[in-house]
Amino acid sequence: MRCDGFLFFDFMQKLQVTLWNEFIHEKEKPEVAKIYPNGIHGAWIDALRGVPELELTTATLEQPDHGLGNGVLENTDVLLWWGHAGHDRVRDDIVAKVHQRVLAGMGIVVLHSGHYSKIFKKLMGTTCALSWREAGERERVWVVNPAHPIASGIEGCIELEQSEMYGEPFGIPEPDELVFVSWFQGGEVFRGGACWRRGNGKVFYFSPGHESYPIYHHPSIQRVIRNAVQWARPDTLIPAFTGNCPVEKARERVVSRGPSVH
Amino acid sequence: MRCDGFLFFDFMQKLQVTLWNEFIHEKEKPEVAKIYPNGIHGAWIDALRGVPELELTTATLEQPDHGLGNGVLENTDVLLWWGHAGHDRVRDDIVAKVHQRVLAGMGIVVLHSGHYSKIFKKLMGTTCALSWREAGERERVWVVNPAHPIASGIEGCIELEQSEMYGEPFGIPEPDELVFVSWFQGGEVFRGGACWRRGNGKVFYFSPGHESYPIYHHPSIQRVIRNAVQWARPDTLIPAFTGNCPVEKARERVVSRGPSVH
Amino acid sequence: MRCDGFLFFDFMQKLQVTLWNEFIHEKEKPEVAKIYPNGIHGAWIDALRGVPELELTTATLEQPDHGLGNGVLENTDVLLWWGHAGHDRVRDDIVAKVHQRVLAGMGIVVLHSGHYSKIFKKLMGTTCALSWREAGERERVWVVNPAHPIASGIEGCIELEQSEMYGEPFGIPEPDELVFVSWFQGGEVFRGGACWRRGNGKVFYFSPGHESYPIYHHPSIQRVIRNAVQWARPDTLIPAFTGNCPVEKARERVVSRGPSVH
Amino acid sequence: MRCDGFLFFDFMQKLQVTLWNEFIHEKEKPEVAKIYPNGIHGAWIDALRGVPELELTTATLEQPDHGLGNGVLENTDVLLWWGHAGHDRVRDDIVAKVHQRVLAGMGIVVLHSGHYSKIFKKLMGTTCALSWREAGERERVWVVNPAHPIASGIEGCIELEQSEMYGEPFGIPEPDELVFVSWFQGGEVFRGGACWRRGNGKVFYFSPGHESYPIYHHPSIQRVIRNAVQWARPDTLIPAFTGNCPVEKARERVVSRGPSVH
Repeated sequence: MRCDGFLFFDFMQKLQVTLWNEFIHEKEKPEVAKIYPNGIHGAWIDALRGVPELELTTATLEQPDHGLGNGVLENTDVLLWWGHAGHDRVRDDIVAKVHQRVLAGMGIVVLHSGHYSKIFKKLMGTTCALSWREAGERERVWVVNPAHPIASGIEGCIELEQSEMYGEPFGIPEPDELVFVSWFQGGEVFRGGACWRRGNGKVFYFSPGHESYPIYHHPSIQRVIRNAVQWARPDTLIPAFTGNCPVEKARERVVSRGPSVH
Repeated sequence: MRCDGFLFFDFMQKLQVTLWNEFIHEKEKPEVAKIYPNGIHGAWIDALRGVPELELTTATLEQPDHGLGNGVLENTDVLLWWGHAGHDRVRDDIVAKVHQRVLAGMGIVVLHSGHYSKIFKKLMGTTCALSWREAGERERVWVVNPAHPIASGIEGCIELEQSEMYGEPFGIPEPDELVFVSWFQGGEVFRGGACWRRGNGKVFYFSPGHESYPIYHHPSIQRVIRNAVQWARPDTLIPAFTGNCPVEKARERVVSRGPSVH
Repeated sequence: MRCDGFLFFDFMQKLQVTLWNEFIHEKEKPEVAKIYPNGIHGAWIDALRGVPELELTTATLEQPDHGLGNGVLENTDVLLWWGHAGHDRVRDDIVAKVHQRVLAGMGIVVLHSGHYSKIFKKLMGTTCALSWREAGERERVWVVNPAHPIASGIEGCIELEQSEMYGEPFGIPEPDELVFVSWFQGGEVFRGGACWRRGNGKVFYFSPGHESYPIYHHPSIQRVIRNAVQWARPDTLIPAFTGNCPVEKARERVVSRGPSVH
Repeated sequence: MRCDGFLFFDFMQKLQVTLWNEFIHEKEKPEVAKIYPNGIHGAWIDALRGVPELELTTATLEQPDHGLGNGVLENTDVLLWWGHAGHDRVRDDIVAKVHQRVLAGMGIVVLHSGHYSKIFKKLMGTTCALSWREAGERERVWVVNPAHPIASGIEGCIELEQSEMYGEPFGIPEPDELVFVSWFQGGEVFRGGACWRRGNGKVFYFSPGHESYPIYHHPSIQRVIRNAVQWARPDTLIPAFTGNCPVEKARERVVSRGPSVH
């Protein structure tokens, strides 16, 4: 589907959003379950429910094909991804399919500890490593690009009373657009909101969201997620043609000459 | 080794350059052997031999560990890579080691059909696909960034009387710096000289260099390769520290509070 | 006006688009008048007329305040700009106002010889110089970023049977996103479709459009202009707050200490 | 002078570095004079004196042509710039000359309150505005790009016990490379070390350096300045050729056809 301008795409069809959460901590740790009784993805549903043009699906690690089979992935326009304890249990063939789908145009929003997921590392090509400390300290998520659609509605910074520290250096390629930079009480900074394009697909990484704190219930964090899903929508979902261009189809006439090993 | 400024690094030790060529066509096709009797890497040696601060090593697909074992990779500062027919025969564990070495700081110069190598795709995170036509047509490699060190000594464009066409769209992330754009007789253009940083390492892709034409003997192409090797030299080869920062070592005093699942 | 997400902005109010053309050649040269009887901006109106959410205004050099006074500029969301013979006659104070409006969020689409306008050079900070030749030669405008919304609906390349050559090196900062690269019959290439963000505003430069050829009547060129106007729409039009943050309003309590010269 | 590779340039001639300081506060405020008895530029001389390949010149606002006439600018390879109270007193024609020299290849290192200088705003094309607070609070300058030559020798972060707060949003174009991000005790963050290329010249902005604190005497800050000067050295100082390419000199033969208004 190649869309004829933004507006047609927006209104003639719903945006299919799949919320992928490994869903381990919430089932194993009562203190996490208390914060996220419907799973971390449950809080995302709260964030996105009110947006009329979205159609939401959830998927988790333990489901067959991690919930991404049976055409779910092929029909997904934007995918959210949260993982932590189960990164290694995500099947490589599923990761390869998600990767192909992003390159074809699907948007992906990678959240918090998802920085170390197979799919994020595959898209970035780098270590995606960082420094971290879990002390329930204060975090301020500053907007550094106030005109960016993902920062829409956020003035100055988001204050999180308790958060896990993620610190620099963060092993990512230079972002195409840096939207948020975090401040931590213990003295660190972090490029916690960053955008890249990979193939036809848009990638947004957003660092807040530790399982031990109610961060995904924070209205401003929910706003960022809502913005990010809308920003990540595909502009096109047709892969670009590439391949051999036969000599007789060259746009300027060329006569084949010289050696060839093909 | 963390170097104290550029100059110390330049002169106190030689830059270790490893030239990796799959070395298949030259052995199987007499017409290629005629152009590159010492292999494609032989032409690179001609290009680099005169630079006093370089120490050159060659490595090929058929060697044990593809010629990158026994400490060769660990002692390489800049790696050149050309492959075509044998991409799939490059072992995944060797690719993973090359990848780690780039992220630690080794420069890599990927040439022509190396765009489809496992290592380049792993560094880019994209398809790296392109359009192509083998008709021995004319190519002009235009400098679009005349101040870039890799374009040093190249005025306007490099004319190649016979070349393989590589055309857009090229499935790469937006380059950090675009240095060359090619024009083809048959009507296409191609972003054929582009730079990225991945981790501590620098990556340069340069498209000219088909095995059927004597492109690597062209003095200006040799100049670009010489420039690229010098540009790709590591500024540092120590991986950045990341990992857990214990609460008691935070730079500002923080008192741990709140739940934790660790 | 800070908009709450994309969709509200799109539909609750029209996008105010101002088409600025110096409008000299069309009045002085019969051969230009024949191609653009309603001015070059007349052809843009044809391109944009069908889009229901746009409200179009035209402005020209000879009008008082170049047609940008009386609140026109303050109510413009996206500005198109074409100039050539009259660059120097554009008043500096008007340029300064356009500049401020872009930094506040207004999009600007700079066309063809507008590369040498005061406003484009002020936004870029560079020479914006290029090579050129007027020989009515063939141009192909290749899509290098097929997923970009400005390339929506354009497959492969746009063929222009007669065009003015614009060639590299083009004196611009590295584009944030490169969308089109042109091929010319005479042997040159040109980065003719490029995006930047400056302040809150989006900037798109598009090179096709010489006054001597009917390029702005070409359906695909009109499609690009239509796409560009929609892409350049403001996400926000409130300038970001900056200024002094008094000590007593710091988010973490700080006690002023040490010398100060203020 | 177009240099044949890095090494020739490095050693065959000295790098001409001009240190420009408006030099007002040090003369008017005893508390500043106590910290910088030889001017702020005196501390930079301390930082750079030990580097054998540099030749240092100083220039100040009150000198004729601000100390940049008589061939000083034309012979400068890298310019440092600090201004604050006297931005408006810098003559526009001198700013235009500095701008041209950067575009031709001269490196420029803009320090602290220089963010609001005419030359920096002209190079960036944006407001260059920021938030600020003078409370002598703690700053940590974190390395976010550990492999960048300007960060060479800096591990983790630089701690400044007393500094002026500079906060986001900072009105700059997206940096080509972000090297440092600052943390402030009062709760803010700032992209305080950033690189751009403009024309042939390299631009580095570095935020630490308030006149009321001895920041330029800090060994790590001096190290960054030393690194920045070496990084900013020109790779070429010949402006790129642009201009008209006559039809008869086109690289592919073209026959002029169609109308022309020239």
